[in-house]
Amino acid sequence: MSLLVVGSIAFDSIETPKGSVEDALGGSATFFAYAASFFTKPRLVSVVGEDFPAEHRQLLTGRNIDTAGLVTQPGKTFRWKGRYHQDMNTRDTIAVHLNVFGAYDPVLPDSFRDSTHVFLANSSPVLQKKVLEQVHRPDLVMADTMDLWIETQHDELLALLPHLDGLVLNDGEARLLSEDDNLVRAGQAIRKMGPKFVIIKKGEHGAMLFSEDGIFAIPAFPTANVIDPTGAGDSFAGGIMGYLESDKTPPPGRLRRGMVYGCIMASLTVEGFGLDRLTWTKRSEIDERVEHYQAMLAF
Amino acid sequence: MSLLVVGSIAFDSIETPKGSVEDALGGSATFFAYAASFFTKPRLVSVVGEDFPAEHRQLLTGRNIDTAGLVTQPGKTFRWKGRYHQDMNTRDTIAVHLNVFGAYDPVLPDSFRDSTHVFLANSSPVLQKKVLEQVHRPDLVMADTMDLWIETQHDELLALLPHLDGLVLNDGEARLLSEDDNLVRAGQAIRKMGPKFVIIKKGEHGAMLFSEDGIFAIPAFPTANVIDPTGAGDSFAGGIMGYLESDKTPPPGRLRRGMVYGCIMASLTVEGFGLDRLTWTKRSEIDERVEHYQAMLAF
Repeated sequence: MSLLVVGSIAFDSIETPKGSVEDALGGSATFFAYAASFFTKPRLVSVVGEDFPAEHRQLLTGRNIDTAGLVTQPGKTFRWKGRYHQDMNTRDTIAVHLNVFGAYDPVLPDSFRDSTHVFLANSSPVLQKKVLEQVHRPDLVMADTMDLWIETQHDELLALLPHLDGLVLNDGEARLLSEDDNLVRAGQAIRKMGPKFVIIKKGEHGAMLFSEDGIFAIPAFPTANVIDPTGAGDSFAGGIMGYLESDKTPPPGRLRRGMVYGCIMASLTVEGFGLDRLTWTKRSEIDERVEHYQAMLAF
Repeated sequence: MSLLVVGSIAFDSIETPKGSVEDALGGSATFFAYAASFFTKPRLVSVVGEDFPAEHRQLLTGRNIDTAGLVTQPGKTFRWKGRYHQDMNTRDTIAVHLNVFGAYDPVLPDSFRDSTHVFLANSSPVLQKKVLEQVHRPDLVMADTMDLWIETQHDELLALLPHLDGLVLNDGEARLLSEDDNLVRAGQAIRKMGPKFVIIKKGEHGAMLFSEDGIFAIPAFPTANVIDPTGAGDSFAGGIMGYLESDKTPPPGRLRRGMVYGCIMASLTVEGFGLDRLTWTKRSEIDERVEHYQAMLAF
């Protein structure tokens, strides 16, 4: 069993109503792998520039993340700058500098091609398909996408979907892709486009799963201390797939339990800027939140 | 045991992306009492004008609603006209004609003063307090409010809150009253203002309960068929209090189960214009949805 993530590593400059941070380590692959590292040893495939400091690399390897697929290219690391609105649910992108990520064409190390679990973090569906073709026979493939690809590479995205087990996307993206404002119908419609299951992320309102078992909906783990929502979605996916890869119990309900662990990882991530909160999270804390969450949902 | 509701009866003209309806029977007391009538025999206190047709009155009495507190005054019945946006989560009020409801000063029939459960539907906190003073010694008092009162009768609302067991309000109103954008903190802050528990309604995203037992959060019952959200909040409250008034099981978890029944009643209401969907709802259908909902939440 082995979990692979292919996605971005970035320096994030973030403003939220709670403060701001400059050039914090971020990116979809970073958050995913870090969250998943509480459950398994993730394999990371990404690219950074020559400005990527050794201590960031050590932060990843120190978490038992396999960085054999992390390449350094001439130039600068991907940079993103954003500002969150008062409600923390919406944000403006102020600057994007793709830098080395712009022309990145991921090549999997041979040792990663036998990965059983694959997460294709948000990127062009063409690139996601090229990555997937490099993996031998994965057990479970999940991908993220975004409004940009839904709008500009619609056919390419539709061509990818039947190759996925799961598609994860947020509520606005689900409405856009399905052309339906009702999220229940939207999730069902997207599932008909090919993926075996669809997960719709709703930020502070939790998430919904559409699968052959019907609909599963969960609220977010309530936290009074939202500092920075950046990376919540990728931590959510990392919690799901880290749990799924490590879980040895029978399949029924496994995906649901994975969603719960994903929710918990997201709730931790938002309690600090960037990766900060996860860097001092203990595995026991995750289990405590799961227990608290179960009690919270009981009736 | 006896459940009292004091609130409005209105003719609603509604436009939604699914169609429109003119002068449909609505109002907070109507939706509340109708939803509660699946569990108990609610006592209704409200006012209508001389234009209120006999068949509407029969629709209420036919549901076993006690209309001894329904008075008819010279003039017209309260009228509201609204238009829902594409996402069904937001709406514009196009016209409000309070008519006889404008100067309404509710007087409880003597036979209603021993009510054990009281719902003060949305109206001025001054009026809500006056109503409450007419009830002898209620076991459970819950009230609804809105942005208008939070803004224009803030002190009066604060004076009411310590007299309530529960306050129910929507997410925007909770943010406004608490002056906090984080709903977890908002719910906790409002509870400190006096009510024993606070319920925050989040429309299609479900609801949160803040009580001495901590936080309880539930997603909405997923329905693919949202026709008209009008009355969902009052049906939710009617389901909660109808269930609470009729439930004979021990208190722990009773409020949570009430919230679940409230969610189910709201999910039914939104599947038709006005009261339509509730008029052909069977009690067995409610229990089936609760069962389905429990399975949906299990992990």
